Amino acid sequence: MSFRFDTLSTEPQTELGPGLAARRGTFLTPHGPVETPGFMPVGTQGTVKGITLEQLRATGAQMILGNTYHLALRPGEQTIQRLGGLHGFTGWEGPILTDSGGFQLFSLAEMCKVTEEKAVFKSHLDGSLMELSPERAVAIQQALGSDVMMVLDHVVALPNSTEAIHDATQRSIRWARRCQKAQTSANQALFAIVQGGLDAELRVWCAGEMAAMDFPGYAIGGLSVGEEPSEMYRIIAATSPALPTHKPRYLMGVGRPIDLLEGIRRGIDLFDCVMPTRNGRNALAFTDTGYVRMKNRQYAEDPTPLEPHCPCPACGRSKAYLRHLFQANEMLGPILLSLHNLYYYQRLMHEARAAIAERRFAEFYRAKVAGWGKDC
Amino acid sequence: MSFRFDTLSTEPQTELGPGLAARRGTFLTPHGPVETPGFMPVGTQGTVKGITLEQLRATGAQMILGNTYHLALRPGEQTIQRLGGLHGFTGWEGPILTDSGGFQLFSLAEMCKVTEEKAVFKSHLDGSLMELSPERAVAIQQALGSDVMMVLDHVVALPNSTEAIHDATQRSIRWARRCQKAQTSANQALFAIVQGGLDAELRVWCAGEMAAMDFPGYAIGGLSVGEEPSEMYRIIAATSPALPTHKPRYLMGVGRPIDLLEGIRRGIDLFDCVMPTRNGRNALAFTDTGYVRMKNRQYAEDPTPLEPHCPCPACGRSKAYLRHLFQANEMLGPILLSLHNLYYYQRLMHEARAAIAERRFAEFYRAKVAGWGKDC
Repeated sequence: MSFRFDTLSTEPQTELGPGLAARRGTFLTPHGPVETPGFMPVGTQGTVKGITLEQLRATGAQMILGNTYHLALRPGEQTIQRLGGLHGFTGWEGPILTDSGGFQLFSLAEMCKVTEEKAVFKSHLDGSLMELSPERAVAIQQALGSDVMMVLDHVVALPNSTEAIHDATQRSIRWARRCQKAQTSANQALFAIVQGGLDAELRVWCAGEMAAMDFPGYAIGGLSVGEEPSEMYRIIAATSPALPTHKPRYLMGVGRPIDLLEGIRRGIDLFDCVMPTRNGRNALAFTDTGYVRMKNRQYAEDPTPLEPHCPCPACGRSKAYLRHLFQANEMLGPILLSLHNLYYYQRLMHEARAAIAERRFAEFYRAKVAGWGKDC
Repeated sequence: MSFRFDTLSTEPQTELGPGLAARRGTFLTPHGPVETPGFMPVGTQGTVKGITLEQLRATGAQMILGNTYHLALRPGEQTIQRLGGLHGFTGWEGPILTDSGGFQLFSLAEMCKVTEEKAVFKSHLDGSLMELSPERAVAIQQALGSDVMMVLDHVVALPNSTEAIHDATQRSIRWARRCQKAQTSANQALFAIVQGGLDAELRVWCAGEMAAMDFPGYAIGGLSVGEEPSEMYRIIAATSPALPTHKPRYLMGVGRPIDLLEGIRRGIDLFDCVMPTRNGRNALAFTDTGYVRMKNRQYAEDPTPLEPHCPCPACGRSKAYLRHLFQANEMLGPILLSLHNLYYYQRLMHEARAAIAERRFAEFYRAKVAGWGKDC
C-alpha cells in the first residue's frame, strides 16, 4: 500500500474542547514519508521562487506543492508528463501535492465563469480559454504525477451571500464525487476539500458528505481569503472534529506562524502557504521574537544575524548586510530572506512535532506566542 | 610576506611572437592563493548577483571583485569597515580585489566631470556629488580592506581623439603615482593600470612608466569598451611583453570565453567580467559547443542537460525545465544560468591551467575554439 497515515501521538488534554488536540503523525506516500504536522512550501510554477533544489532540501521540507492551473497553462501537463512528470521535470524526489485549480476560481474570479459543468478561464497569459472541469482537473494532476491530488472545489470570496456560499459548497461536493469517479491512477491519493464559508453548520455538513465518500485525506479550503483570524480558527475548530480521525487533515493556503500553531491545536496535520517566500521577497523575515522588516533603517549597521542559532545562509550574515542587499535591489536579498523564512517554518513544525511527541505542546504554544508578541 | 607571485610553468613555444606565451602561476594573498590564469566573478555591490556564498564557493572561484564606486555610495565604506571590511561584510573568506572606480569615469561619463585633481560624480542613486581622487580611491579601498587595490585610472571611450587618449593615459600615470603615495596599508597590494587606447606605442610607453614605479601587479585597462576583438588582442599582444615578467598581469573587464583564451595566450594571468552572470540573467548559457539561448523554442521539450558532465545545479535539470523557468519569469532561471556560467568559466580556467602545466595549451586552445564554432 503506497499511502498510509499513522497518528503517533495526540495531545492528552485540550483547552479548546472535545476532538480538538494537536497530533503527531506520519503520512507515507510513494515518494517517501511526510512527518506531520508538516508545512509544504509552494512551487506554483514548478519551482519554489528563487530557491534551488539543493537549498530547498536543506530547509528540511519534505513535501512541496505544485499548481495545476499554472502548470497546465505553462508549460502544459503533456510536456511535463513527457519529461517525467512533476518529479522528473523539477527534480524534486520527495512527495508532491498538486492543488486542483479551485483556488483560481476565487483568485482569478474576474477571468473565470463557473457553471455546474466546469469553470472556464480566460488565460492570464494570452487570453485563450482554458476549461477546468472536475474530470480535467484530475486528468491534469494524473499527467503531472503528483503524490496527492486535490479535488476541484468551488472557492468563493468571503464575505458572500448565504446563497452563493451554499451553492458553491454543494457544487464542491458534486465535483468531489466527479473527481473521485474520474481518477484512474493507482499511485496517487485524491484528497477532498471541505467548503462552507464561515458557516460552521454548513462546514460540518460538508465534512460529513465528504467523509461518506471515503477519501484518503481531507482538506479545509476557502479560508484565509480575507476573514479575521478568529473567524478562521472558529471554522477550523468546527470542521476538524467532523473529519475522519484516521485520515490526514490539510488546511489549505494557511498561513502565518501563529495560524499554523492555531491549526495544529485544532488537529490539523498539513499546511501550505506562499508566505515564507512572498514575505521573504518583500523583505519581511520571521523570527522567534516576531517580524523583522529588513529595510528598516535601524538595521543599517547591525552586525548581528536575524537569528543566532539558525543554520540558514541568511543567518550566516549580519542584518546590516541583508538590509544592504534590499537597499541595493540585489536579488540575493529576496533569495536569502526566502530561505530564512523556509527554514523558520520547517523548524517551527519540527519543534511542534517534538513538543507533541513529548506531550508539552500547550507549553510550547504559549512560549512561541509570548516570543512573537504583537506579531500574532 | 603577504603577497607573492610565482610562475610555475610557461608554454615552451609560442605561435604569436616573442614574449607571448601562456603561463601557469600562483598569486599568494593574505586571504589565500589564486591559481593563475584565474577568473574573478564580479560582486559589484557586495554580492555576485543572485548567488549565495555557498554556491559561489562551489563554483571554484578563488578571488572575487568588489566595486569601489558602488560600495562607497551604498552602504558606504565606513559602514563596511565597521562591519569587518568587505570580507566580514560579505562573508567571502578568499581573496578580494577592488576596482578603483576608474571604469565609472567611462561608464557613467555623462554624470562625471574629470579634472587633474579628481573626478566628480553626480550619484546615480540620489544626485548627490561624489568626489573620487586618487587619494580617495585608495582611502576607500583601504577601508574596504580588499587584498588587491587598483589605482584610479582615467578610462575613456573608444574610438576617441588621439589627444583625449594621450591626455587620459598621461593622467592615469600621474594618478597611479598619487595612489602609490597615498597607500598606508601594509597588507594590501596596489596594482597599476596601463591605459593608451588602441595605440600600441602609447600602451608600451605607459607600461614602461608604470613598471618603473614598481607595483606588485599590473592591469591592462580601457579595453572591451566597444572595439573589435582583433583590436583588443593586438593591444594585449603589444602591452603584455612590456610588463614585468615576475608580476601578475590582469586584463580588466574581459570577457567571452574566447577572449580569456586569447588573453592567456598573450601571457595574461587574471581576468574579471560580468558576462557569466549578466548573460545568465539574460538566458544565455556558455557551453563547450557554443552559446545556448535558453528561451529558444527548440528546447521546449529537450530532456537533456546543458552539459552532461557539468556538476552545477542547472545541469542537474533538463533544458526544457530551464527554458520553462525563463518563460515563466521565475527568478530561478537567472540564478541557475548564472551558476552554470560561473561553473563554466571556472572550469575553463582550470582546464587552461592543467593544459599549460602539461605543455599542451596550444592544442587545448585549438580544441576549444573548434568546439565553440561560430561563437568565437
